[in-house]
Amino acid sequence: MQSPIRVGLVGTGRIGRNHASMITATPGLRLTSVTDVNSESATEVARAFNVEAMPTVDKLLDSANVDAVAICTSTDGHVDVIVAAAAAGKAIFCEKPISIDLSQVDRAIAAVNLAKVPFLVGFNRRFDPHNRAVSSAVHRGDIGELHILRITSRDPIAPPVSYVKVSGGIFIDMMIHDFDMAHYISRSKIVEIFAKGAVRIDPAIGEVGDIDTAVVVLTHEDGTITTIDNSRQSVYGYDQRIEAFGSKGMVTSQNVLENNAILALADGSHSARVQDFFPERYAEAYRNEWLEFAKYLIEGGPSPVSIEDGRHPIVAGLAAGLSLREGRPVRLSEISIPASQVL
Amino acid sequence: MQSPIRVGLVGTGRIGRNHASMITATPGLRLTSVTDVNSESATEVARAFNVEAMPTVDKLLDSANVDAVAICTSTDGHVDVIVAAAAAGKAIFCEKPISIDLSQVDRAIAAVNLAKVPFLVGFNRRFDPHNRAVSSAVHRGDIGELHILRITSRDPIAPPVSYVKVSGGIFIDMMIHDFDMAHYISRSKIVEIFAKGAVRIDPAIGEVGDIDTAVVVLTHEDGTITTIDNSRQSVYGYDQRIEAFGSKGMVTSQNVLENNAILALADGSHSARVQDFFPERYAEAYRNEWLEFAKYLIEGGPSPVSIEDGRHPIVAGLAAGLSLREGRPVRLSEISIPASQVL
Amino acid sequence: MQSPIRVGLVGTGRIGRNHASMITATPGLRLTSVTDVNSESATEVARAFNVEAMPTVDKLLDSANVDAVAICTSTDGHVDVIVAAAAAGKAIFCEKPISIDLSQVDRAIAAVNLAKVPFLVGFNRRFDPHNRAVSSAVHRGDIGELHILRITSRDPIAPPVSYVKVSGGIFIDMMIHDFDMAHYISRSKIVEIFAKGAVRIDPAIGEVGDIDTAVVVLTHEDGTITTIDNSRQSVYGYDQRIEAFGSKGMVTSQNVLENNAILALADGSHSARVQDFFPERYAEAYRNEWLEFAKYLIEGGPSPVSIEDGRHPIVAGLAAGLSLREGRPVRLSEISIPASQVL
Amino acid sequence: MQSPIRVGLVGTGRIGRNHASMITATPGLRLTSVTDVNSESATEVARAFNVEAMPTVDKLLDSANVDAVAICTSTDGHVDVIVAAAAAGKAIFCEKPISIDLSQVDRAIAAVNLAKVPFLVGFNRRFDPHNRAVSSAVHRGDIGELHILRITSRDPIAPPVSYVKVSGGIFIDMMIHDFDMAHYISRSKIVEIFAKGAVRIDPAIGEVGDIDTAVVVLTHEDGTITTIDNSRQSVYGYDQRIEAFGSKGMVTSQNVLENNAILALADGSHSARVQDFFPERYAEAYRNEWLEFAKYLIEGGPSPVSIEDGRHPIVAGLAAGLSLREGRPVRLSEISIPASQVL
Repeated sequence: MQSPIRVGLVGTGRIGRNHASMITATPGLRLTSVTDVNSESATEVARAFNVEAMPTVDKLLDSANVDAVAICTSTDGHVDVIVAAAAAGKAIFCEKPISIDLSQVDRAIAAVNLAKVPFLVGFNRRFDPHNRAVSSAVHRGDIGELHILRITSRDPIAPPVSYVKVSGGIFIDMMIHDFDMAHYISRSKIVEIFAKGAVRIDPAIGEVGDIDTAVVVLTHEDGTITTIDNSRQSVYGYDQRIEAFGSKGMVTSQNVLENNAILALADGSHSARVQDFFPERYAEAYRNEWLEFAKYLIEGGPSPVSIEDGRHPIVAGLAAGLSLREGRPVRLSEISIPASQVL
Repeated sequence: MQSPIRVGLVGTGRIGRNHASMITATPGLRLTSVTDVNSESATEVARAFNVEAMPTVDKLLDSANVDAVAICTSTDGHVDVIVAAAAAGKAIFCEKPISIDLSQVDRAIAAVNLAKVPFLVGFNRRFDPHNRAVSSAVHRGDIGELHILRITSRDPIAPPVSYVKVSGGIFIDMMIHDFDMAHYISRSKIVEIFAKGAVRIDPAIGEVGDIDTAVVVLTHEDGTITTIDNSRQSVYGYDQRIEAFGSKGMVTSQNVLENNAILALADGSHSARVQDFFPERYAEAYRNEWLEFAKYLIEGGPSPVSIEDGRHPIVAGLAAGLSLREGRPVRLSEISIPASQVL
Repeated sequence: MQSPIRVGLVGTGRIGRNHASMITATPGLRLTSVTDVNSESATEVARAFNVEAMPTVDKLLDSANVDAVAICTSTDGHVDVIVAAAAAGKAIFCEKPISIDLSQVDRAIAAVNLAKVPFLVGFNRRFDPHNRAVSSAVHRGDIGELHILRITSRDPIAPPVSYVKVSGGIFIDMMIHDFDMAHYISRSKIVEIFAKGAVRIDPAIGEVGDIDTAVVVLTHEDGTITTIDNSRQSVYGYDQRIEAFGSKGMVTSQNVLENNAILALADGSHSARVQDFFPERYAEAYRNEWLEFAKYLIEGGPSPVSIEDGRHPIVAGLAAGLSLREGRPVRLSEISIPASQVL
Repeated sequence: MQSPIRVGLVGTGRIGRNHASMITATPGLRLTSVTDVNSESATEVARAFNVEAMPTVDKLLDSANVDAVAICTSTDGHVDVIVAAAAAGKAIFCEKPISIDLSQVDRAIAAVNLAKVPFLVGFNRRFDPHNRAVSSAVHRGDIGELHILRITSRDPIAPPVSYVKVSGGIFIDMMIHDFDMAHYISRSKIVEIFAKGAVRIDPAIGEVGDIDTAVVVLTHEDGTITTIDNSRQSVYGYDQRIEAFGSKGMVTSQNVLENNAILALADGSHSARVQDFFPERYAEAYRNEWLEFAKYLIEGGPSPVSIEDGRHPIVAGLAAGLSLREGRPVRLSEISIPASQVL
């Protein structure tokens, strides 16, 4: 039996703690150290998981006790850590989005490609068993050629406006997952986007220049047409559905309910709420994500979600923003020529 | 094109009117005359359907204008009409149960067999598309050998006690449909019954010697074990479900809802009531029943539901009553040796 | 009891025959005469329904035996019959679309408004119990303010190219129903459309200048955003679903299956096909449509689907075509100023 | 923060390992030592969980490092460990059934009651969120008075005959869970049982004197009638459903599928298998079970599943066996007068 891969966690906020649990529960991985700009948070998490708290990212990266890093800082800190970790030869797990600034993303890509370190972008939804059943059906050809793809993603509750303000906007912060799913399921790049949006939930979101309700139409290289709709507030729970329609059929994933009991009364049938929120809804996805990251580190092969995979939905998000502002369909080539042709 | 088969309706109450509509809408059949002990009711229905009202059953049977009769009188009148109609050489559709008195049933069987007239017992559920999908799956062998069969049949609202009093009791009036389904789906005779029952809905039902809640376990000739449960009052609607479990799988039918919309709110998901009551829930079954009666009259072949098929569930119902009274499993052979060995 | 309203049917093709059955089964209405450019077809239908075949529309309109007409000709014949029927003072039921030429539509509107005859456009889906459960939930305010509406409409099988050629194109021939549903459910006019389309099913459809796969995004006056997707070929059946999402929840309608049995086997669970095609799927809608047309004729009041209701989706369809051709969002005001401001 | 409760595991077979994981993941508990008659197995599990392997149960119970024991030996070893652990003053978690010999169960009850140690019987299904939603609905009164209860429990695959031989038979080994659910949901003792059974899956099961297919009807003290059906082989997965019907409605739990994707093809709709087997299907139930055991140890109060709760389904199982052998309904009082009246 191989000795476990030692993982250092950078960023001990909510999502960082979630990943700390997942790493701990993954055979083949061991959480060894954590760090955070808030040293109190780092100390607390270190104690809870019985690991070392490091004062800085650099110290953590210098440690002989770290083979891989999990980057769970706020988005604007991602690329600096990626570049430093790549230089230190560490394998990298990075939460989405890599950055909201495409030139920063490309800086990260250059560093990772130069260092040839393993890299996985934390697009958790790719690892969800329900989404996977959809993508497997599509990739096996069960529905023939893909014609129309529909993705619904609605959060149960809007985040605080303070968060919205620095989030990069709904297309980068929230719809990025859906752009990635569109790419992942179709296996075809997005070439054009038309976006509509509105402020329907909270005027304060509009006041900071964002929207809370968004619908986009994507055209893919292979002719697939995708629609995505997002809302910042779905009172019935975390609405996460995908539908792929093709020449031979359709495959859909349904929402997961809190429980599956059905109560039949004189006024009709009643069932449970749709399950909130991402840590619960995607618990199994997070488990799978770390299992596959471990497998990728141990066995090699292509990344389950490469850094280039992480770039495409950012370009899509930027194009969606431009489409919304200008009221016209925007081609992704207006935003950036594909990284592959540049780097 | 053949001239239509002319049908005379005996009994113009609720179920009789339902059948009048069905006959009218069935290609190849024509409703020509009606009769009822209540001549006012007969006249009213005759006018509504633009047909002749006859003063008596005998007159209706004498008419040159009648090829077949639909017997929709109260149960205690069935056998006399069957015997007369058979003697007159008419094809016969008879509502269930043929009689609650087995010797009367056997009198009817003798008359029908002697006259060799076509005969169909109105077990409407055999013609329902959902039940049929279940029985087809079983008969095709999709679930392998049948091991366990479960039938649920719960009425939305208890009938008036005046009706209960003359109904023959829950096993003959209500569960007879389920005994028939058990026989129809398993294609195997019931050999033993154990019944439990209770008065849970309406004490007045108990006061007239009946129960309103019943559960039975049936053992079939081929070893299949069936459970049936009945309630006289299911507040959420007319509950009609079947489940067949076997060596290779299971097939179930679900309830039909009033509509299929789903409302997802903060407190969970809500859908419509289960559809009430038999005229609506089994509308398509009634249409199919008459289509197949017409086909059987025109093309010949075995009856879709023969008079012997109509006898078996009556024996089962009588055995269930005895089991309930004596608190022990009862073999159907205690009630009656099979008609086929007698007649 | 009132004497029945006498209906003359103009056009005895497939949809005409369907309506003939519905009229016949509607209390308060009586089919009295039919006509068709194909006199053989008219004669055949007249015989089947035991009514009079008239040689021409004019003769039918002249008849003292006709109070109302059902216009079921090919689309290009609608307006002439409307104008003549209005002039003759007949109540009018007209199949959708009124015309594919907006000036013709406006000619029909002028004639109907001048004659003040009752008029109903045959948007059958408004009368479907499942769609109605959705619209009732929205109109009752169950889901709060409407934010996002999604409509899926996919035919089981593409029509012959000969039909496609004269159909007015997918937006007028097929999506018109969905534009009407978007208007009906939101109770808000469409102001802007962005359309994407592709030929994915049958190249021959592309060769005659049409598409077979279409996705549109609509913006309504009240800010609701609607997406519609259409396909000419859904191999799993006639896919008809609506989803309305709002501030307090979501309501959806599901597809209707051929039966509701579920077969659970070693390789998973299996259920029936989605029910084909409009005459079966919308049978109850057609029944309701005629019941409400009869009620409207007898009791008066506003039309369940007014001629102006029939105009709006045609404008939307024309705007969608323009959007597709020019690759940009199109405002409906580019196509036509609202009829109400003109006429 | 309290120091964690130290748990010693007795029995390191499949279910023991499952519990070892659960204990490890439960806040407030710490697995400290393990033992097994197979010392190799104990050593292996000790190493995997980084705890101490003890050579015997006595050594484990003597250890100052053990506050509570988890008894996961084969059934025939349970009572000796219970008695010893009670004498040592340890809190006790014991897998079901306590014993297949009622006098042994009563010996365990006497020991536990004398020592007044905390005790929980591992009826995992009581802790499942789907079953709980059913029981909560019943206990809240949502369905009014309970009339009929139906429990289905079918294993995906029959155990080896070697296991069947020593299992105590289907009623004690398998249906015991369902007897407990019937008791737990109805909150009413079972007073009478009628059992039917058959060998349909594997003749070898019959050869060792057991059955593989069983249906029982229970009558409860409060008049509720329950049916349970069991099969040793359900090829479509681990079938676990409950339905409670009462005066105001019905509540049901559905099976859990491996994933919730639905594939709609030309031949119908297809979804995933029902999830196998108990470690996966009841993973959340096991987590809850240990969370509540910890809470009970820390906060006191009544046991979530007391040792008396563990006795009742054993009596029911013995009565079911007698009913099957004698072909008659059996009252539980024939087997044993209730422990509460004896002890």
